[in-house]
Amino acid sequence: MLYVQKFGGSSVADKERVLNVANRVAQTVSAGHKVVAVLSAQGDTTDDLLKKAREINSNPSKRELDMLLATGEQQSIALMSMALAAIGLPSVSLTGQQVGIHTSSSHGMARIRSIDTERINYELERSNIVIVAGFQGMDRYGDITTLGRGGSDTTAVALAAALNADLCEIYTDVEGVYTADPHIVKNSKKIDVISYDEMLDLASLGAKVLATRSVEMAKKYRVNLVVRSSMSRAEGTLVKEEAKVESTYVSGLAIDKDVASISVIGIKNEPGMAYKIFSALAKEKIVVDIILQSIGRGETKDISFTVNLGDLHKAMDLLQSNRQSLGFERVSYDDNIAKISVVGAGMATHSGVASMLFEALFSARINIMMISTSEIKISVLIDNKDTDAAANYVHEKFFSLPAR
Amino acid sequence: MLYVQKFGGSSVADKERVLNVANRVAQTVSAGHKVVAVLSAQGDTTDDLLKKAREINSNPSKRELDMLLATGEQQSIALMSMALAAIGLPSVSLTGQQVGIHTSSSHGMARIRSIDTERINYELERSNIVIVAGFQGMDRYGDITTLGRGGSDTTAVALAAALNADLCEIYTDVEGVYTADPHIVKNSKKIDVISYDEMLDLASLGAKVLATRSVEMAKKYRVNLVVRSSMSRAEGTLVKEEAKVESTYVSGLAIDKDVASISVIGIKNEPGMAYKIFSALAKEKIVVDIILQSIGRGETKDISFTVNLGDLHKAMDLLQSNRQSLGFERVSYDDNIAKISVVGAGMATHSGVASMLFEALFSARINIMMISTSEIKISVLIDNKDTDAAANYVHEKFFSLPAR
Repeated sequence: MLYVQKFGGSSVADKERVLNVANRVAQTVSAGHKVVAVLSAQGDTTDDLLKKAREINSNPSKRELDMLLATGEQQSIALMSMALAAIGLPSVSLTGQQVGIHTSSSHGMARIRSIDTERINYELERSNIVIVAGFQGMDRYGDITTLGRGGSDTTAVALAAALNADLCEIYTDVEGVYTADPHIVKNSKKIDVISYDEMLDLASLGAKVLATRSVEMAKKYRVNLVVRSSMSRAEGTLVKEEAKVESTYVSGLAIDKDVASISVIGIKNEPGMAYKIFSALAKEKIVVDIILQSIGRGETKDISFTVNLGDLHKAMDLLQSNRQSLGFERVSYDDNIAKISVVGAGMATHSGVASMLFEALFSARINIMMISTSEIKISVLIDNKDTDAAANYVHEKFFSLPAR
Repeated sequence: MLYVQKFGGSSVADKERVLNVANRVAQTVSAGHKVVAVLSAQGDTTDDLLKKAREINSNPSKRELDMLLATGEQQSIALMSMALAAIGLPSVSLTGQQVGIHTSSSHGMARIRSIDTERINYELERSNIVIVAGFQGMDRYGDITTLGRGGSDTTAVALAAALNADLCEIYTDVEGVYTADPHIVKNSKKIDVISYDEMLDLASLGAKVLATRSVEMAKKYRVNLVVRSSMSRAEGTLVKEEAKVESTYVSGLAIDKDVASISVIGIKNEPGMAYKIFSALAKEKIVVDIILQSIGRGETKDISFTVNLGDLHKAMDLLQSNRQSLGFERVSYDDNIAKISVVGAGMATHSGVASMLFEALFSARINIMMISTSEIKISVLIDNKDTDAAANYVHEKFFSLPAR
């Protein structure tokens, strides 16, 4: 079988961990499999390089930042190849350029367009382990690009798809995907199998185990994904087409503190106003999540929505400086909020999930500020200070059942 | 005019020095010139990476070492581009791969085969300063290679040749080429103009200002080279086709402590013996410098020669384990020696240089162990402990004249 194994920055942070990963790869090889390993930069390397750049230029060019940051992964892969050689295994390291990972030119957030498989297949045929730098590619000018946060996961899944690999294993510092963040909810349980859609909702709602884009890509190309720990032998969580677990209807709880709400008040009650506001935000690449529009009271209406905390000030500036042209009275924000979401493919056919959620929050005396629902999830906004209590009450409500 | 400016590792060691170099480049640009800057890795980066590699594998693969080390220059060029942007100058950084610096596949000591000029010329036409990673290139498989010690000088000269640049400036931490090492000889003087051949002899004889290969290349392609300091405004030393300095006949003094002598004793006095010995050494890439062969005394003869100190044990092992097949009695070595050389294009037409040299050493009561002469240089081997005295006496003898 062909395995793509991805190891994150903490898994290769120092000499000992690099050797530990080499041994993990060796185990897969000695079981008769071929391995393509995808690595992130060691530990804090990326942050250190960013700091170095900002000391020289507070607003460095994105092209040059990619040139700088890409060295982190390049160092990881060279060191890993040396570690594998030290335990007698032949390998070859390849940068994104050398593989031929072709991307768009959006430096810092490039999208993979295509992947050449010729060099990798050539090396695999010669029984080499292939070690690929994650997070990076090149655009059509030959310039180095990076894929943005979680980019190494995306590299791994894209490689697994291009190479038609049997399994894509994402090694991380947790043992898999949990029903809720184990740091907040003590009783959270590891999920054995989960569907792409459920994982997507968990990922986009703040469960930081897998990057959303990598799950989207896995779904699109039907890549079987496993999330597991590089430090233990535990089985991990399998993400695949359809999770055959009829008996449950809620798969997990996502907690997102990285969120703020904005309220635009006194918008003229006429068609096209929401379009104007959200297209202005979209033009600045501000991602809007939950949107709530009040029923128009005569001549005006209000719209509230959530954004990532990091985009809050940009969004506020944009709205305030365009108050006249967008045609509203005033705008306010709240950055002391959190979002708790209950996710599950079974929810659509199982009534009462919403009321169970509200009941759990009510019993904890937690006020709900906004509600949003879809076929497989319910999200609520609450006060930031209530997050831990809410997460534990809600988890207790849904998961204090026999282990799945 | 088109300038190629090369800045070494110490010139870009930290944030302040990177900004200092950016300002040097800016001065050239504001004088109306175009600039291609070639950079080394910052300060101790290369050594730090080597150490990191050796901690994981005491004998790392040369291919992977090149993959690792090349990141040092890549970081330098990205940071320099950011520094130039910070002072308002547009630039673009390019790795050896991106320029298209094609080399042989000898990792760690690759030779430049050809350089593509398309991308650089495109960027220069768009008024970008072009910042190129020194020391690195790629072989025909697209694998990253490095050029070995002094490789960034070679990159700069090769680029100047390929781009038909008007001048190639090598910025370093000294103000130019001196008549002798200023650390040893206090009265040494900076040379204003020197010919390629003289510089070659000085370079190969241990003056560490310029790498030999870069001077050879400058000579071959008639590249006008300037060696100058990145820390001062001093004029530096111009290395060019013919140094028009009729009045002087000795251009400098080279001191080399990095040398050892080997004596092969009791070699059968028949044709082909020297060939056997030196071809065995050449096969192991051991460079032999001065060779002295005794006049045969009946059935045997002796051969003494010098090697780099770093190659001494390899050479001794080789000779000792092949004593039988090479056919000699025994071999001995001396690693407590130094080589002092007087270099000058005017020597060939000026008698008495040798006797002046011997007189200076005699007046200092320094014993000469071996002598070697060529058209433009005389080298003597002396006891290591006499180096400083010898250098000062010899320098006094040749340079206590009116300043050139």
